[in-house]
Amino acid sequence: AGSRCPLWSRWPRLRWLTSFPIRALGQRSAAAGSGAGCGPGTRRALHAAVPSCQQVALTSERYGLQRLPFSHLTRSDLAFFERLMPGRVITDPDELKLFNVDWLKSVRGCSKLMLKPQTTAEVSQVLRYCYERNLAVNPQGGNTGLVGGSVPVFDEIILSTALMNQIISFDKVSGILVCQAGCILEKLNEYLEQQGFIVPLDLGAKGSCHIGGNVATNAGGLRLLRYGSLRGTVLGLEVVLADGSALDCLASLRKDNTGYDLKQLFIGSEGTLGVITAVSILCPQKPKAVNLAFLGCQSFANVLETFTTCRDMLGEILSAFEFMDEKCMELVERHLKLSNPVTGSPFYVLIETSGSNSTHDEEKLNNFLEKTMTSGLVTDGTVATDNKKIKACNLMLWSLRERITEALTHDGYVYKYDLSLPVAKLYELVTDMRARLGQSAKNVVGYGHLGDGNLHLNITAESYSHSLLAAIEPFVYEWTARHSGSISAEHGLGFKKKQFIQYSKPSQAILLMQHCKAMLDPKGILNPYKMLPSRP
Amino acid sequence: AGSRCPLWSRWPRLRWLTSFPIRALGQRSAAAGSGAGCGPGTRRALHAAVPSCQQVALTSERYGLQRLPFSHLTRSDLAFFERLMPGRVITDPDELKLFNVDWLKSVRGCSKLMLKPQTTAEVSQVLRYCYERNLAVNPQGGNTGLVGGSVPVFDEIILSTALMNQIISFDKVSGILVCQAGCILEKLNEYLEQQGFIVPLDLGAKGSCHIGGNVATNAGGLRLLRYGSLRGTVLGLEVVLADGSALDCLASLRKDNTGYDLKQLFIGSEGTLGVITAVSILCPQKPKAVNLAFLGCQSFANVLETFTTCRDMLGEILSAFEFMDEKCMELVERHLKLSNPVTGSPFYVLIETSGSNSTHDEEKLNNFLEKTMTSGLVTDGTVATDNKKIKACNLMLWSLRERITEALTHDGYVYKYDLSLPVAKLYELVTDMRARLGQSAKNVVGYGHLGDGNLHLNITAESYSHSLLAAIEPFVYEWTARHSGSISAEHGLGFKKKQFIQYSKPSQAILLMQHCKAMLDPKGILNPYKMLPSRP
Repeated sequence: AGSRCPLWSRWPRLRWLTSFPIRALGQRSAAAGSGAGCGPGTRRALHAAVPSCQQVALTSERYGLQRLPFSHLTRSDLAFFERLMPGRVITDPDELKLFNVDWLKSVRGCSKLMLKPQTTAEVSQVLRYCYERNLAVNPQGGNTGLVGGSVPVFDEIILSTALMNQIISFDKVSGILVCQAGCILEKLNEYLEQQGFIVPLDLGAKGSCHIGGNVATNAGGLRLLRYGSLRGTVLGLEVVLADGSALDCLASLRKDNTGYDLKQLFIGSEGTLGVITAVSILCPQKPKAVNLAFLGCQSFANVLETFTTCRDMLGEILSAFEFMDEKCMELVERHLKLSNPVTGSPFYVLIETSGSNSTHDEEKLNNFLEKTMTSGLVTDGTVATDNKKIKACNLMLWSLRERITEALTHDGYVYKYDLSLPVAKLYELVTDMRARLGQSAKNVVGYGHLGDGNLHLNITAESYSHSLLAAIEPFVYEWTARHSGSISAEHGLGFKKKQFIQYSKPSQAILLMQHCKAMLDPKGILNPYKMLPSRP
Repeated sequence: AGSRCPLWSRWPRLRWLTSFPIRALGQRSAAAGSGAGCGPGTRRALHAAVPSCQQVALTSERYGLQRLPFSHLTRSDLAFFERLMPGRVITDPDELKLFNVDWLKSVRGCSKLMLKPQTTAEVSQVLRYCYERNLAVNPQGGNTGLVGGSVPVFDEIILSTALMNQIISFDKVSGILVCQAGCILEKLNEYLEQQGFIVPLDLGAKGSCHIGGNVATNAGGLRLLRYGSLRGTVLGLEVVLADGSALDCLASLRKDNTGYDLKQLFIGSEGTLGVITAVSILCPQKPKAVNLAFLGCQSFANVLETFTTCRDMLGEILSAFEFMDEKCMELVERHLKLSNPVTGSPFYVLIETSGSNSTHDEEKLNNFLEKTMTSGLVTDGTVATDNKKIKACNLMLWSLRERITEALTHDGYVYKYDLSLPVAKLYELVTDMRARLGQSAKNVVGYGHLGDGNLHLNITAESYSHSLLAAIEPFVYEWTARHSGSISAEHGLGFKKKQFIQYSKPSQAILLMQHCKAMLDPKGILNPYKMLPSRP
């Protein structure tokens, strides 16, 4: 492997990955259902333990919801759509099943129609018609969301971006990509890599998710620590509003201070304010060197100190700092038969560096490892440096982190929470929850993007139980609010979290959001029953 | 100086700065009127060549404007404010002069009242009263804007953030700073540097400008290339709306996807939608090593290729890439008596690196310099690496760039344009304009943040001339629109550019902006006559 890690000899406990038996190697992104706490890799992730689409209770029935007075679909509506986009009007119930249920199989709608436009003009015509007719619409990308925002609640028309998958332009000097909303994240990244660039966004669901959906949900993911949020990297959007009018904010400029930045309204609006049809995004250069370190720590305090040391010593090349507790690793090993090269630690961290000079980067990483192992902050670990031979090891290390979501779904019914908290308090909630639930939960695990203050708290049980839910909620939200956290760091509110918004936003802000919704979608046809509490 | 640049001996033309005679050394930030094309360093910049406040024509008279039907200030209004904030109600005409005129002395209002609240509650009470009474309000920070957005047009009440200058909190683990809106940028940076951090924003006006004003105008500046725009780094805002209600979006979280990101509406809204009273901002670590290179190129094509080479070879440590043409350097030398260590080149670039390891950074920089000088892309240059002894040289190199704005004001009347363009087209506009204007202009210069595609085009003449203006506008805006650029990259629209918004935004977008304004400020009392064309 040529560049054997110099620490290997000095630090016998720090193993060099090529010598590690790769038992459960899988393509990082093609891994069935790999999810960085952020959704599936591919639809193949739907495994046997999970109920089939038909077995999922209808959301409207489970929650006893009343359908809003939208119009019902008629034959003449169908005829209109068939004329508009012949062959791209889906009404076959079997074909529709998959798009009525979310990836987690936790919510199910009963839409009778899915439309697959190819152009912005078609989206415009669809929405103009629906607005006129008062037909509700559920915009859908890769359907990888985790809060029930991407599937209908009742019979909303599913407006899919699946066929809007064209790259419009890429400029190698500026690094600016312009593409249609339905481009799959992983495909975009592959295209960009050929040009020496990457998408500034990476998440477990990349094999299925659409860039338009990523923007609509303000997806976070694994590269946020390094490249910042989509609010900074998305330079322009084209959006079709509820009444069918197209709003062209598709600028390809790093700087533009001419009026209010309207595109920001649509980033993270979860399809409730408009349908994103095209995206302009600033892409960073593909790093020439990528290194990974998978380390064990004896306490969360040590994880925190490892983080600050890491940020200090790795500086500008740090591109990910993920943590997971030993319970997570147990589940990944038990359910997915993955092997953890580092064992016997209550906490694990995955550190990635991305830089332009492999010698410099390895030197920085080695200095950091030497310091943290000497001081006892890190007690065990393995490293992988960028090299074609060990790309597989790299993927394997990442899959230990990315496939936790999948492992959890094998463990039983999962109560999922995606919280932002002050970094120092991040794990206290897991400990508190574990103590609170005792034997009534099967497993209480914590992992996430520590560098961003983002905890994924997951609780599993043999099956859904109302009393367990009552023990978890609103306790988890109150705990989060008490520490000025966010009850949804990156997953959004969708259908399942919308009633908890007041734990993170004051009523004045919620009211203003409702005004925004009323201004942009006065009939409320776009993704109804989602994100915001109904207007008083 | 210990770490003599290794290139000095190999490349005789590349001089090492400590051997350079420092004739005109000044504090980078305290330099009178230093402006990175973005406003003054201090008010001392008001030099003799510029008319006194009283000599500036009243904006309303010069433009023949009609005052909107806001109420007129009464004695009982003054009595109310005096009760609310005794001693912080300014009515003395002499004291008000400075705040009625912009730094460029290009626009002048005739406000008879300035209020200096200290708390959000006071701002709230002021606005509630003004809203009730239909009194117009001009929010004002450091009054360093370049488009006439920060001073009244008629008799609007000036609401100054000058006394709202408290740091509320700083968290060293997360790097998140929370402070009042009136904190001066440079003061914040000094405070942060003591903690090992910096503000992710730097601009020539830092000695005067307020962080609230920076956010309200979405200021760009010198560090944007590295740390991204305020849309990514501002994590939270506290805003008082037109009716006096306070909107608390002052989260200190890197990730929060609970509802629409309302704070984005106020970033870059130039005081027209609400008054920003507090800011939460993510601050990067202070780089351990900073290096500068000031280089000469023989053509703009070479500047461009130097940029792509630089981005490729310096990668993650590149923190600024500024360019200026030889005319700029002539003016800086002539009017400010600064010395240019590199002469005889039609173009100059200033490259800054910021990183965590000085040895690595210098090696990267040297490799880059070796490559660009060998290939002839760069034909002359000087470098300064971080070292206390040469901090002064560093400041001097930066001042060559930052004080161009000031030098221009000494050259006569200045027509200023701040444009975003595709990088490859950036200088073509300067050449076209020079050819177009011929002898009717004194100087036509181009400089700016090349790495961000941001050109500052400035035209000087002995005095203001309507025919010269007619030769420049709308040509400059049409040229920019033809290349899909922005007619205001970072300065905003304010008063002076608002009528040109349609060159960069479609009417659909402008209409939606007007709806936003009407929603948040139905009486239009906040910074009237600014940013948006009047509603039809």
